[in-house]
Amino acid sequence: MRIYFTFEPRPDLRDPLVAEFPHVDFIFETGLSIDELQRADVLVTYGEDLNNENMNYATNLKWIFVASAGIEKMPAQAIMERNILVSNVRGIHKTPMAESMLAHILAIKRALPWIYEQQKKSEWSKKAKQSELRDSTALILGLGAIGSEVGRLLQAFGVTTIGCNRSGKEAAYMDNMVCFDQLMEALPKADIVISVLPKTDETTHLLKLEHFKVMKSNAIFMNFGRGNLVEEDTLNQAIQAGEFGYAVLDVFEQEPLAADHPLWSLPNVIVSPHISSHSSRYVERSLEIFKPSLEKWLRGEKDLDNVMDLSRGY
Amino acid sequence: MRIYFTFEPRPDLRDPLVAEFPHVDFIFETGLSIDELQRADVLVTYGEDLNNENMNYATNLKWIFVASAGIEKMPAQAIMERNILVSNVRGIHKTPMAESMLAHILAIKRALPWIYEQQKKSEWSKKAKQSELRDSTALILGLGAIGSEVGRLLQAFGVTTIGCNRSGKEAAYMDNMVCFDQLMEALPKADIVISVLPKTDETTHLLKLEHFKVMKSNAIFMNFGRGNLVEEDTLNQAIQAGEFGYAVLDVFEQEPLAADHPLWSLPNVIVSPHISSHSSRYVERSLEIFKPSLEKWLRGEKDLDNVMDLSRGY
Repeated sequence: MRIYFTFEPRPDLRDPLVAEFPHVDFIFETGLSIDELQRADVLVTYGEDLNNENMNYATNLKWIFVASAGIEKMPAQAIMERNILVSNVRGIHKTPMAESMLAHILAIKRALPWIYEQQKKSEWSKKAKQSELRDSTALILGLGAIGSEVGRLLQAFGVTTIGCNRSGKEAAYMDNMVCFDQLMEALPKADIVISVLPKTDETTHLLKLEHFKVMKSNAIFMNFGRGNLVEEDTLNQAIQAGEFGYAVLDVFEQEPLAADHPLWSLPNVIVSPHISSHSSRYVERSLEIFKPSLEKWLRGEKDLDNVMDLSRGY
Repeated sequence: MRIYFTFEPRPDLRDPLVAEFPHVDFIFETGLSIDELQRADVLVTYGEDLNNENMNYATNLKWIFVASAGIEKMPAQAIMERNILVSNVRGIHKTPMAESMLAHILAIKRALPWIYEQQKKSEWSKKAKQSELRDSTALILGLGAIGSEVGRLLQAFGVTTIGCNRSGKEAAYMDNMVCFDQLMEALPKADIVISVLPKTDETTHLLKLEHFKVMKSNAIFMNFGRGNLVEEDTLNQAIQAGEFGYAVLDVFEQEPLAADHPLWSLPNVIVSPHISSHSSRYVERSLEIFKPSLEKWLRGEKDLDNVMDLSRGY
């Protein structure tokens, strides 16, 4: 059995893996070579190196383990035709992303950007405009592992959470639930509006100008899902018109965000270059998910964790 | 009964108070006048306007309600001699302070200062050095309302909390406990060291260079208690020698911090000008504590909440 990694884990993570599975041939490369792809039984990849063309050479491949949560860039059709099982690291992002979201929310509430600027001027001033997170209301769009985790943390801070998904069915760590159709009624209640929605037809341009118009004037809008949620022009127009208070954006319709884009320089916009899921512990966590799946696979079992349905896109 | 406020609550907070206690004469001023002090039965103050001299005029005064947590600046002896009851708003700071502390910790872990600087340059880069708060260990010195609240929140983030007080006796939201004498053994375990200790003889220069030397090289040290905890020269020397990773300081030996002080410009020091307890909801919260005490007082009861022992200093 040949397992082909198209990235190289650090030695302290790689060596225990190799030692734990002595009957497996592990190939570690930085990048994908056709030669190794042809020989691989299992591929471990971040997912961005696969395309329709190189999939033609994946003649032995039975399982792709994607060390990533999004799969938009994968050649779904070619993979399905070859009947290759795909599993991913669903849930791996929840800790760093929820921590990033709380970092941004608390930084705004507790005036950290202002404190940093005062420090640069060596200026001792107590005129910070600080408020509290406690007793706010957050509306969370998208209730997978990440949405639940941010809901859990917000509740610990005394925030009321309203979850929002397609069905409006109950979800963990949500005090109340609404469905997409009830957005217009839920938005005016929220001090914080968070999206962690995946990219699907239904989520594309789900938020329109009318939605921003009913937000509280000091609401914090955070997009940590996908950039397709709202047209950048709409967002830009809404924030400049003061329809809401603050935007924290980790994702954009067009990435990277163009250097001359107006969003970079608006005082009440934070541009995070799609890094909220990054963590020094990412590969460690990926391997923690990979190992039990590999054990199952070696026993001939196919009911791995996080098997993906490529036809649905997640 | 005359109740004299030496500050003016906003009308939306003041008016309901006045309406709720129709038999009380409320005087609201911004600042203290001897004339009104002489006539007052009850004084509501932030505490900084009292001194040995003006206390001579407080001949009717029976109760001082201090809308503040620290009382170092109050003329303790003069107040005790007049047998005046003092109560305060103990616990009022816990929400804004714990939120500020979590804001600073998460901002460092999730590289917010770096993200802000990149944005100023309109530079899309993913090279942020981000880590996670989860699975860290925090050592918390001082376990009153604030220490417990920050412990509670840290635990929600999956952090192991070690509490530290004089006795080492169990406290809420602490996974383990140590006493002051065990600091040298506890410090090397901590990724985050937080002090919320009050100013007493025992806490003055409690932390010495040897303590910083045993900290983890990437530890975050946070002083949100009082500046007497460590000599500023010691702190400055320790951080410049790289004994620990990051300092977040809300309090200083000498406040305001002098404009030419080296701490302002060190890259791994955050100077917060003693504002972590500030909140737009401060007066609202103070009055919520004051009202039930006033009801008791009007019934002739003396067992108010948060009665202070001025002889002990807290």
